[in-house]
Amino acid sequence: MAISENPFAPTVVISNISPLVEGGRFATKRIEGELVRVEADIFKDGHDEIRAKFLWKKIEKGSPLGWSETPMSPVDNDRWATELRFEEPGLYECKILAWADAFSTWIHDFERRLTGDQEDFATDIEEGRIILEQSAERASSSRKDVKAIKELEKELSKADPDDIPELFESSDTRDILYRHADLSQATENEEPFRFMVEEKLAAFSAWYEFFPRSAKGKENEHSTFRDCLPRLEDAKKMGFDIVYFPPIHPIGHTARKGKNNTLTAKKDDVGSPWAIGAKSGGHRSVEPLLGDLDDFEQLVIDARDIGIEIALDFAINCSPDHPYVKDHPEWFFQRPDGTIKYAENPPKKYQDIYPINFHCEGWEELWEELLDVVLFWVGKGVRIFRVDNPHTKPVSFWEWLIARVQEVAPGTMFLSEAFTRPRMMEMLGKIGFTQSYTYFTWRQTKEEIIEYVEELTKGEMRNYYRANFWPNTPDILPYHLQNKGPAAFKIRAALAATLSTSWGMYSGYEFCESEPLEGREEYLDSEKFQLKERDWNATGIKPFITRLNQVRQAEAAFQEYANIEFIDSDSNQVLAYYRWSDSDPESRIIVTVNLDANYKQDSHIHLPLEKLGIEEGQEFQVTDLLYGESYLWRDSTNFVSLDPRTKPVHILKVTVS
Amino acid sequence: MAISENPFAPTVVISNISPLVEGGRFATKRIEGELVRVEADIFKDGHDEIRAKFLWKKIEKGSPLGWSETPMSPVDNDRWATELRFEEPGLYECKILAWADAFSTWIHDFERRLTGDQEDFATDIEEGRIILEQSAERASSSRKDVKAIKELEKELSKADPDDIPELFESSDTRDILYRHADLSQATENEEPFRFMVEEKLAAFSAWYEFFPRSAKGKENEHSTFRDCLPRLEDAKKMGFDIVYFPPIHPIGHTARKGKNNTLTAKKDDVGSPWAIGAKSGGHRSVEPLLGDLDDFEQLVIDARDIGIEIALDFAINCSPDHPYVKDHPEWFFQRPDGTIKYAENPPKKYQDIYPINFHCEGWEELWEELLDVVLFWVGKGVRIFRVDNPHTKPVSFWEWLIARVQEVAPGTMFLSEAFTRPRMMEMLGKIGFTQSYTYFTWRQTKEEIIEYVEELTKGEMRNYYRANFWPNTPDILPYHLQNKGPAAFKIRAALAATLSTSWGMYSGYEFCESEPLEGREEYLDSEKFQLKERDWNATGIKPFITRLNQVRQAEAAFQEYANIEFIDSDSNQVLAYYRWSDSDPESRIIVTVNLDANYKQDSHIHLPLEKLGIEEGQEFQVTDLLYGESYLWRDSTNFVSLDPRTKPVHILKVTVS
Repeated sequence: MAISENPFAPTVVISNISPLVEGGRFATKRIEGELVRVEADIFKDGHDEIRAKFLWKKIEKGSPLGWSETPMSPVDNDRWATELRFEEPGLYECKILAWADAFSTWIHDFERRLTGDQEDFATDIEEGRIILEQSAERASSSRKDVKAIKELEKELSKADPDDIPELFESSDTRDILYRHADLSQATENEEPFRFMVEEKLAAFSAWYEFFPRSAKGKENEHSTFRDCLPRLEDAKKMGFDIVYFPPIHPIGHTARKGKNNTLTAKKDDVGSPWAIGAKSGGHRSVEPLLGDLDDFEQLVIDARDIGIEIALDFAINCSPDHPYVKDHPEWFFQRPDGTIKYAENPPKKYQDIYPINFHCEGWEELWEELLDVVLFWVGKGVRIFRVDNPHTKPVSFWEWLIARVQEVAPGTMFLSEAFTRPRMMEMLGKIGFTQSYTYFTWRQTKEEIIEYVEELTKGEMRNYYRANFWPNTPDILPYHLQNKGPAAFKIRAALAATLSTSWGMYSGYEFCESEPLEGREEYLDSEKFQLKERDWNATGIKPFITRLNQVRQAEAAFQEYANIEFIDSDSNQVLAYYRWSDSDPESRIIVTVNLDANYKQDSHIHLPLEKLGIEEGQEFQVTDLLYGESYLWRDSTNFVSLDPRTKPVHILKVTVS
Repeated sequence: MAISENPFAPTVVISNISPLVEGGRFATKRIEGELVRVEADIFKDGHDEIRAKFLWKKIEKGSPLGWSETPMSPVDNDRWATELRFEEPGLYECKILAWADAFSTWIHDFERRLTGDQEDFATDIEEGRIILEQSAERASSSRKDVKAIKELEKELSKADPDDIPELFESSDTRDILYRHADLSQATENEEPFRFMVEEKLAAFSAWYEFFPRSAKGKENEHSTFRDCLPRLEDAKKMGFDIVYFPPIHPIGHTARKGKNNTLTAKKDDVGSPWAIGAKSGGHRSVEPLLGDLDDFEQLVIDARDIGIEIALDFAINCSPDHPYVKDHPEWFFQRPDGTIKYAENPPKKYQDIYPINFHCEGWEELWEELLDVVLFWVGKGVRIFRVDNPHTKPVSFWEWLIARVQEVAPGTMFLSEAFTRPRMMEMLGKIGFTQSYTYFTWRQTKEEIIEYVEELTKGEMRNYYRANFWPNTPDILPYHLQNKGPAAFKIRAALAATLSTSWGMYSGYEFCESEPLEGREEYLDSEKFQLKERDWNATGIKPFITRLNQVRQAEAAFQEYANIEFIDSDSNQVLAYYRWSDSDPESRIIVTVNLDANYKQDSHIHLPLEKLGIEEGQEFQVTDLLYGESYLWRDSTNFVSLDPRTKPVHILKVTVS
């Protein structure tokens, strides 16, 4: 019989589980200790009382741990929910179990029977007794529970019908019977699903990027790893936790690019760190001018001592001088004449880079080699990788690589540097990148920013895409920062640092470096192609940035990814929003930003008092965490004035006395 | 190597396919010949040109047919789409195939190369030649194509670079190369998905329900199948295609209900047809007072002769006298004393019905028996079943049963009579019910109706839930029809018949029978419990209903499920909407309904001229298909006047001269 191929016909329907990514195809991302809400539609035919629970188990090699569980409760319209916190990072397998509960159905029916005109309850009581008897059998591993159930059974047998509901009223009693419910006909959701739970840094981080070779700020002197510690200390002082280095590997000589990306390098030109590979080595080596591997390892240790993680760039680019070219020509694309193809985007040619053929015949060996490169640096103490242009390599490669790394070195973080079309950026988040660059860099107007932040935090992206907001990068000096002064830089930094739980800046930002390559969104004399003269000890807007990061550290409201709501403001130049914390109810912050770097802007803002936990007419204090002033407010409508020359931003902490 | 466990690393990402039901867990419903649009996100790393196609194959035992296919095209933002029509009913397995296309990438790059300063194209031309050579190898089954490709290869070798794009411009050439593309690294979507394609009747149908035992309309004389033909002819004359009979099986005697659902039946009381089973048989037998199986079979034949399908009620209810009770007591719930449980919803008891235990120990035999009952009636010529209270039986049972029936008797239709909570009603649609009853019966106000119809036709339900709108049933005489006259009945019939492609009515509606059981939404002297005295030859609102069904038959706009949009109207009592057809552009209909059965209502309505295919300022004619009048309209804003005593509804066909 075909029916017997399905030996267990499900008794309960479990569907529409949330939050899932593509129906569970990809793991849902959350942070350790974060409040997680799981929901599902759970229902069955007829009038049985349903019970349901959510179960989770860490997927770990040789892990002997069993399932953890928490009961789910009905919310509305057959929707059930539970809230929990995953206490440890890891990949969790999850499932939902639901069943028609014999005891609950019986007692519920019994209570309703008492409201009718039934007189003889003997059979109904006997049914209850049998249910208890069977519970006691299932409880056999707990003598205490068996005893309690047997006691109930005895009381049930001699009770007056009207007194029976009372027998089962206590939550202890209900818990005992729930623990030993008959799950032999329970239904499990059809497809298991997973949560990827990561440490807090995965969602709450402040990044700082600089080129080690310019660590001393000398135009004519190549700096080394040994010069980098003062820069790390500066970054730490400004409140950053992660310092990201562009590639540190040997730089190719063949077709090396000159200053400002010119085609022919001069003799002293240092080349682009992204043209990786020379005689001195490839992706496992360091550029000799920076020092050696020992120097690098020491720097990682020194950095960690002061609370800084060093993130490496993982750029799968090979210069024509990369050892792979000689050792594995089959990993590259070849022209009919047998030469290796350089990168092209016709009619543009990039002769300094040979792209890799990820689907070449020897792809398995190639993929394993690249995995091994990542693990090599993991072995040197690196836990965080910024991945260069992941969208130019196969998505399936990244899914495979990240999963493998997570198996060997759980908690390794990958930041996706994909500035490309939305579906690709989203997919890279789904398949495992920890964080992703975003379009924030170009979102300027109030409308654009609100729309984008809501897309990131209110929709499905919230479950797989962790935004990292960068106002600039070595590749991007956006038009709105070009030739601008401190106000513009403060505004964009404040937006990045308070709209998103992760943000980052490329060095020079703190000095408001703003001279563009004429007509392009790029830096003039870009560090990508030359050593940079820079007075690292200048002040610039360091105090402002420092304060931003301090406030982020002090207030839980800035540390919970999706806890942001925009506030109505009358001026189109004034952006207002509030943030809150699920773990610290005292951390309630209203941010107001003047988007106009040139003129003072005033606006009324209209607070959602109820959401802020403030009663109608109640007085409350707001204290500017950037500048110290306090104001007493009472109504939902309040006035703010934001002067780009003095205070373009207010970060207002709400306190109710 | 773990990597080799995944022998084919996908090159292209295919995701977010639509229209799927729960990500493909359930088949998407469509109708033969209907225009179907399939979409997916399709993209890959880098700059390769992508090609994609949609493939489908009927799932049929021993079917030797291969895949059919149609190319997909990019729409926007990595979204690809195709449109097709499944020409035959059946369950179709579907997939999407996408690949980086070597030829398309090469020619696209070549065209861009010509815009730069490249001078030597020899290597690039040679690359193109190799691509053609490989195409020719793959084309070996078509000598014509091989010849054409070889010819191209020759021309390519001697052409001036600037002339090369022209060589490949013709769509014939492109088609040949597309046909023989290299699919060795093509990607298939991860999970196959299915379309359930049904005959037109599955989505476009008009149902009429009557009790055969009252076919002659005599209160004191039980009618038989032989009395039913005039009723079928009446239904046909009114334009109905399906006549549904309440259960025709022997009715139980034990605990039989009396008139108006009273607990004790009098000697002559005929009982409820839903209390199935007596000495004379169970679900495979007919009530002796109606005739015998031969009579029934003859009636099915006679009905089909006049274009009527007879739908049977499949009610899995057993009276205490049902043969199952004696033969299979293990299929029922038993009390501790060994007696069989009657149905209960405490404190209410239904002693005339024994519910079945679908998860009893002998469930496989039980399920097979119930399947066999359906197939028994299929064998007697029945193709359509109205299923009584499916939500009180396990969803998994229905999913299994319907799939099995469809294997043996493809095209069998099941109408779900679940008036219950939304998730259960939706799920029954997902798991295979062809059509479903709806909340329409209680949706009254303009706002309620618009919200509900949009939910059914604009959202995901459109893919699995086929609404059937009934203004009344033997169980439900809604308050808004109680003690009302023809206007109310016309209005609700017109709404049902024109808002939904399937509608139905329970007999007596055409005579505006409206006397309720005091204080309840039920009929007084319900036919469920007694023979009904009725003058079947009275006129009532038959002409109006007939006209409604004629208009539905004549206009394709009423036959395409989701082709409905609401139109703004100024009055809250005037509901306006338009319908159109994807297959007949001339069928454009505006419906306006006065929701108020008591007073004339006037309103301006505001037509979306562009959607109606009418240019600004263009004159167009609207002709009332119910009453014949024509009007010349020009603007988007037009006036309608709807008098419940004369014309509560306009069905206006738009024609542009």
